[in-house]
Amino acid sequence: MSEQTPSHVLPETERTRHRRLREQGSRDRADLNAILKVGFLCHLGVVVDGHTMVVPTVYGADETTLYLHGSVASRSLVASPRTTVCVTVTHVDGLVLARSVFEHGVNYRSAMIYGVPRALTDPEEKLAGLRCLTEHIVPGQWDYARQPNRKELAATVLLALSLEEASVKIRTGPPDDGDIPDAERAVWAGVLPLHASWGALEPDPTLPDDIPVPAHLAARAHQNAG
Amino acid sequence: MSEQTPSHVLPETERTRHRRLREQGSRDRADLNAILKVGFLCHLGVVVDGHTMVVPTVYGADETTLYLHGSVASRSLVASPRTTVCVTVTHVDGLVLARSVFEHGVNYRSAMIYGVPRALTDPEEKLAGLRCLTEHIVPGQWDYARQPNRKELAATVLLALSLEEASVKIRTGPPDDGDIPDAERAVWAGVLPLHASWGALEPDPTLPDDIPVPAHLAARAHQNAG
Repeated sequence: MSEQTPSHVLPETERTRHRRLREQGSRDRADLNAILKVGFLCHLGVVVDGHTMVVPTVYGADETTLYLHGSVASRSLVASPRTTVCVTVTHVDGLVLARSVFEHGVNYRSAMIYGVPRALTDPEEKLAGLRCLTEHIVPGQWDYARQPNRKELAATVLLALSLEEASVKIRTGPPDDGDIPDAERAVWAGVLPLHASWGALEPDPTLPDDIPVPAHLAARAHQNAG
Repeated sequence: MSEQTPSHVLPETERTRHRRLREQGSRDRADLNAILKVGFLCHLGVVVDGHTMVVPTVYGADETTLYLHGSVASRSLVASPRTTVCVTVTHVDGLVLARSVFEHGVNYRSAMIYGVPRALTDPEEKLAGLRCLTEHIVPGQWDYARQPNRKELAATVLLALSLEEASVKIRTGPPDDGDIPDAERAVWAGVLPLHASWGALEPDPTLPDDIPVPAHLAARAHQNAG
């Protein structure tokens, strides 16, 4: 990791160096931040009791830090600060349908972040992290819903993972076999896009009729999601 | 792992025993197969050169086996048959918006599959696995596009992972705080659903105009995806 790496460039390490398909690798920190911004689900890879677990969990992120949270009874979260973890965020944008099966692929944006997470213990720091995480997933919800009390804070593990070491990969566009002999075949080729979108809000059946939908939730329904 | 476990029930192991939130754990093999059937993206967790990697990749699955493929230059795929991996498939169905931040959650379906993958080397077996994988992701495409030749087969790693050992978790429905004091608060609560859908087919710009869209692709466009 060179000390000369400018701050907007992701430093290259043994783990993040792009070995293959280099045209898909990005070292632009803005790409990392953009990928993290539009998602909220990550997959946490951590070794627990000697075996690898890949745990789906939500995250929040600012420009420098990714936050994970969960129960103090979660084995994967409790084990994480003792080891280097890999957190991966992936958005699939479409299937790349080529003339040959071999050239098929996926349009996607992904980030793999490596590091030893830090468990936050100071209540103020924990609240700030939970606020970041909540506002990342549902902007406006932190000040609207009831915030965590002392007992709930104590029951929550909050991990902070630096975004310093990350590998970003992006693929866009049509298949790559438009200029090789396969293109002579009468085979349709192109992209089948995949979209994620928020649906209509579904009220809790026990919710009294006189509680209005707040503006920050109404604004989210029926919108694109990533 | 008990030999008395009936075949439609997932056996309980040290790794797959549901320790927390047990109401979300399923041991029904039909749930596992349903989760795998509607997806095509998984996250492969594997230890490479001493550190954990979580690699997004596509998969195919039948009732008993999950298939992964990639380049022979892929470090994660080449390392996998020497170690126990964890492959996780996750579908997010919505955000669970409760009265308190603490009770917020996610409606989801996930499967974590543990095992030592087998690298297929026999060309016939490899072709059969690639066919399963291709047909899983884009039904109809195997017989439509050009199938892999010998050189392409040799450049492809194909892994088969048994579905024997898996942990399935599912959460559905409204928030859980409708019957605790928080429900007295004038806070909207419910679910914001998340949907995935296929868009309109985008032809490769180099595609001749006279190549029609085949029926199996036309049928996929604008449909739900998972």
